[in-house]
Amino acid sequence: MTVSNRQLRLKSRPKGMLAPGDLELVESPLPELKDGQALARVRFLSVDPTMRIWMADIPQYMPPVAIGEVMRSFGLAEVVESRNPQFKKGDKLVGFTGLQDYVVVDGQQASAFHKIPSIPFVSDSAFLGILGINGLTAYFGMMDIAKPQKGETLVVSAAAGATGSIAGQIGRIHGCRVVGIAGSDEKCKWITDDLGFDAAVNYKHPDWKERLAAATPKGIDLNFENVGGEIMNVVLSRMNLFGRVVVCGLISGYNKEDPGLASFGVVLIKRLRVQGFILLDYASRFEEAGTELGKWMMMRKLKHRETFVEGLDCAPDAINMLFTGSNIGKLIVRL
Amino acid sequence: MTVSNRQLRLKSRPKGMLAPGDLELVESPLPELKDGQALARVRFLSVDPTMRIWMADIPQYMPPVAIGEVMRSFGLAEVVESRNPQFKKGDKLVGFTGLQDYVVVDGQQASAFHKIPSIPFVSDSAFLGILGINGLTAYFGMMDIAKPQKGETLVVSAAAGATGSIAGQIGRIHGCRVVGIAGSDEKCKWITDDLGFDAAVNYKHPDWKERLAAATPKGIDLNFENVGGEIMNVVLSRMNLFGRVVVCGLISGYNKEDPGLASFGVVLIKRLRVQGFILLDYASRFEEAGTELGKWMMMRKLKHRETFVEGLDCAPDAINMLFTGSNIGKLIVRL
Repeated sequence: MTVSNRQLRLKSRPKGMLAPGDLELVESPLPELKDGQALARVRFLSVDPTMRIWMADIPQYMPPVAIGEVMRSFGLAEVVESRNPQFKKGDKLVGFTGLQDYVVVDGQQASAFHKIPSIPFVSDSAFLGILGINGLTAYFGMMDIAKPQKGETLVVSAAAGATGSIAGQIGRIHGCRVVGIAGSDEKCKWITDDLGFDAAVNYKHPDWKERLAAATPKGIDLNFENVGGEIMNVVLSRMNLFGRVVVCGLISGYNKEDPGLASFGVVLIKRLRVQGFILLDYASRFEEAGTELGKWMMMRKLKHRETFVEGLDCAPDAINMLFTGSNIGKLIVRL
Repeated sequence: MTVSNRQLRLKSRPKGMLAPGDLELVESPLPELKDGQALARVRFLSVDPTMRIWMADIPQYMPPVAIGEVMRSFGLAEVVESRNPQFKKGDKLVGFTGLQDYVVVDGQQASAFHKIPSIPFVSDSAFLGILGINGLTAYFGMMDIAKPQKGETLVVSAAAGATGSIAGQIGRIHGCRVVGIAGSDEKCKWITDDLGFDAAVNYKHPDWKERLAAATPKGIDLNFENVGGEIMNVVLSRMNLFGRVVVCGLISGYNKEDPGLASFGVVLIKRLRVQGFILLDYASRFEEAGTELGKWMMMRKLKHRETFVEGLDCAPDAINMLFTGSNIGKLIVRL
């Protein structure tokens, strides 16, 4: 069977937002499967801020995507043909599929793909978000680094995003007062009314700093940071003594120059612990995290929301949506 | 006995370096001692970068010194008269003496003063530096936050300063490769030849960044930071994965605007732990630290150096010396 495969390959490194042509749609026949390989049809592509980092030729936690290479992404794919006893037709795999219709999984890559189980009332796409990289990221950032204590005030930026929305709920589960910062009134309404955040602040309102102050009358003990730049500076200025800052993401610096930190002195004066982390460091504990997250979902303590975009050719626009703040919850391209 | 007391009082908050008149020399008779009070003659005044913070009306870890108040400082004073059974004539006390000739120690303040023991071969002034705030600061920053491991590379900024020089030696004691950053070739020579640092880099050389890179071929695991600003940015850019940054001081921002951090993204990419601390948080463990530091001194594993300036009226210039980098080791005003 000769199948045609469409791929989005990195043609040029974006400056700022992705421009048309930075990712080039290339169609080519799939190679014949060799022994040890399986072919999987990509069903869902995960759209994540970190993809913008992978496109840049800067020092980072994985090699940047090379020019001409298929753009790296997480995704969910279903095995359609297999010459590897590990995989059989119909298996659903989560891993680095890349932005393409089909992915060939071979012996070497196989370890990077995980079969997902079939769980009642849990959609497949959940394994890209709440039970995937976003849920796991929120889990380790909160449980391993923030270590939330009952009664503490937690502030989450990009709080209506796929990771922030879960981090905030984990704070609620542990008895924190949770305040989210998001970029629209609709997002603020979702995280307070549906997710149970204690308060939400729309940073596009001119008086958002005053609103943040009003929402954190006892200061801030924990900051789960996804944005960086000015938002982080304002949050840091309200940190309490011995506060902890979990540096999960710094999206404000991904498609323009790193805005840095205007007021670093607060780290000293307030004796803060500021710690960065990357999900891949916790690979040995993914099962623990998945089990806990699943339990909280069952108990209805943890909710999520997905925004779907249809079709591979929409993937570049979807990446840009992360930076304009157009999505709520997890952003997924459905093929 | 009526004694005249000279005091340096804060008259105006400095902008940048201290200007003549920011601290005003005022002479007045000492009040009669009341029951519960003791009078102590100040012998040595500790000159510390943190004094510049205390002079500024900004949020900080203690109340700023008020206009008209005696300028706060650590110092060593000898009891000359006592109406308090806790203190007898000849006792030597270390604590917040303030910039003045005499300090009245009363019941309330008494807890803030510690009697120093007489130890063979240890000068009294050591209790302001290596066995005082600088030694203790270096001890807790290294032992509690940096937690140095054998074979790790430690970079210390302001490495010829009172705290940095001890932090580096504690790194050596624990088997680290220790590289100091200092502002003159003389300082670099002292920390390598006398203190046993593995390498030193003079940041005033135009190629200091290349020299730092050459001195840290395996990258940097630990940063004991006293300076902040550009120096810290360069050090951060060479940090290894999971590196630790001990934020002990940020002198580059004390008499001008906080220079902030240009490249905060490295905290995320390199999964750094950046932690600020203030010595006073460790008050309950001062004895432990003093004992360890004393042991290392006895074993000649820990050396120090003092720069003396003579006379109370030189104290303002001495504070400025910290910011021009004119001193090596501990800077002390002798009265």
